[in-house]
Order: sequence, then structure tokens, then C-alpha cells
Amino acid sequence: MPQGQPLVVPDDGLTTRQRRNRPLLMVHTGNGKGKSTAAFGLAIRGWNQGWDIGVFQFVKSAKWRIGEQTVLERLARLHEETGEGGPVEWHKMGSGWSWSRKGGTEADHAADAAEGWAEVKRRIRAERHRLYVLDEFTYPMQWGWVDVDDVVETLANRPGSQHVVVTGRRADARLVEVADLVTEMTHVKHPMDVGQKGQRGIEW
Amino acid sequence: MPQGQPLVVPDDGLTTRQRRNRPLLMVHTGNGKGKSTAAFGLAIRGWNQGWDIGVFQFVKSAKWRIGEQTVLERLARLHEETGEGGPVEWHKMGSGWSWSRKGGTEADHAADAAEGWAEVKRRIRAERHRLYVLDEFTYPMQWGWVDVDDVVETLANRPGSQHVVVTGRRADARLVEVADLVTEMTHVKHPMDVGQKGQRGIEW
Repeated sequence: MPQGQPLVVPDDGLTTRQRRNRPLLMVHTGNGKGKSTAAFGLAIRGWNQGWDIGVFQFVKSAKWRIGEQTVLERLARLHEETGEGGPVEWHKMGSGWSWSRKGGTEADHAADAAEGWAEVKRRIRAERHRLYVLDEFTYPMQWGWVDVDDVVETLANRPGSQHVVVTGRRADARLVEVADLVTEMTHVKHPMDVGQKGQRGIEW
Repeated sequence: MPQGQPLVVPDDGLTTRQRRNRPLLMVHTGNGKGKSTAAFGLAIRGWNQGWDIGVFQFVKSAKWRIGEQTVLERLARLHEETGEGGPVEWHKMGSGWSWSRKGGTEADHAADAAEGWAEVKRRIRAERHRLYVLDEFTYPMQWGWVDVDDVVETLANRPGSQHVVVTGRRADARLVEVADLVTEMTHVKHPMDVGQKGQRGIEW
């Protein structure tokens, strides 16, 4: 997007520089493609700025996001080896939450989501990352697995300069209300409409 | 996005596998953020599949897309050094079109765009890349710098299994018509509304 000018200059007592560097709460919602893809694009950009990136995948999937995970973990190794970019941690819900030491039992999705959110909340309070990707986090919010008011309060009042991007359909109105930047990805035309299934490289 | 089922199974004589691997023409349009970011996310994913990626930036910008370019060029070097992923070429309009050997003269934007498109067209005919990112290509189409019918005909009838993603606002109806997948990124809420300018890591 070409560089734009603000439509209004707010009377908030901040300098342009302070306002420019204000940490953002971003939401990618809507029924179209690109919500998560754009969030991982932000993570790539943040890595290049040397940011500490935390990715948290909140919905279990057979395919996950293999491409993005492989690349971001490769970039994290580059950072360790050469100092380029920043560190990256990638956490998957359930057996994949790497701070949880569950055995082979069937995970309870709701409990996993709540545990995942509790960990994200601890990290936000500790200012652990510079950018959080909370991928498909709208679903546990919608399904009542996490307390929406707690999420909104925690994200809205997070300390320091931590950016957060939340992805998923049907973002809660309370989340949209406190977000700085909300984009709705709208489905105009999709190959599944005409009988095509997802394919490697495009969907994962 | 979780894996979906096709809504209808078309009577086109193709197997599911053939249909699944059909090359896609994708358009990211609308006035919201994430159009290019999602396209570069696709490029990252394609790199991980070992695809040959060609990025073509069609609008000159003071900031360009430094983060994405740095990361994709770093991934291209990784490919050369270790064989991981695939090759990546990144071309910028104007003095940046790397196949053009212009001196220090002021570039003619329209001529540059036409030259860029002619090169992309040659590459498509030669099946040079597996994925083309035609970033902000809707603008030269809209401004009459390239012939829309020629673009549509070339993209719709491209040979082999070449994926193409076009980004930019106000995609031409003829392009939407021949596209397989069109997503409109809709601006719901943006920091510029309340006087915040773009910032490093988020916008570039």
C-alpha cells in the first residue's frame, strides 16, 4: 500500500513519533482467504526488524501451516547462527503447546485453549515478545473456551510496545472495539465454489 | 483456514487430483490492508515447496517492501547454498527492473510498467516461474499503462502450471472474471483514521 497521510491529527498530546510507534492490536477477520497468510507476512517483516516473534496456533488442524512454520523456524535458526533478524517461537495448541508436558492422552480442546491463553497472558504481562500472532484465536473466543472480557481487557491494557495480531472469522465486537486496525477479508470467488479442493503451496 | 469440502463437484472430466493441482490466478483487492502481505505469505509458502518464485513490483515507492524483499532474497541465498526451498527473483519497476539497463535518467513510469509487463508476459510464455507475484499491478492496468485485454488474455491462457497472484485496489472486472480466487480486503478500522502514520515492521 502506498504511504498515506493521516486523515486527522488527533489532539492526544503525543508527538508524531510517539503516535507512529504506538503498539498495535490488529484483527484479520472475514470469511475470505489471507487472514492468517497476512499475519504470517507481518511476522516475516517483524523478524527482519529484529523483533521477538511469538506464534500461537489456537485451532488444531491436520495440515497446520507447514510452509510458514518451516520458514519461520528456519529464520529463527538463522538468527541464532548469524544474528540476522530476530528470535521466533512457534507454539501449537494441544500436544504442541511446547510449555505443556502432556502424555499421549486425548487432549481436551477447550482446556488446551484456556491453557494456551493463560500462557499468552503471562507472556504479555512479562512483555515477552514484540509481536504475537494469535492464529485462529477468534474460534476459542466464540466457542466460550476463553473469557472474551478477560482477553479484551488483557489485550487492550497490555504494557510496553507489544504488537498483537488476531486472526479468524467472526471476530467478537468487543475485540473489534478495542483493536487499532481491523481488516475484513471478504470471499469474492474461491476455487471450492467450482469443486476444487485445497492444494499444496497455496493452502498450506 | 480449516480444510473445506467443495460445494459442488464439476462435470469437467478432471480427476480430483488434476483439479486440485490446477494452477490458480488469484487477486487480492479492496481498500484494506493485507493484500500484498498475504501475497508475500504465499511466496514464502511456495518457496518452502521448492517453487521458483518471481516477484514483480509495479508501483514505485519510497519504502518498497524492505522486510519481504530482504527475507525472500535471504531465502533465495539459502536455496543456492543449501538446496532448501526454491529460487526467488525480485524485480522492481523502473531502475529496479533488473533486466533493463537504464542510466540515471528519470524513468517514464508508464513505459517502465509496459516494459515490466512485456517481460512478465515473455516469462509466462516461457513458463519461467511457478508463482508470479504481480504486486500492485492493478494500478498500471487502471491507469492505461498496460492493455487490460492483453493482460487478461495472457493470464487466462497461460501454459503449464504457473500460479499468479495480482494485488492492488479496484481490480478490473475483466480480471476478476477470469480469476479463480478473488479476495477483497476491506478496511474496517485503521490507525490512519485517528492520525497515526505508518510504522516500521508493520507497514514495511
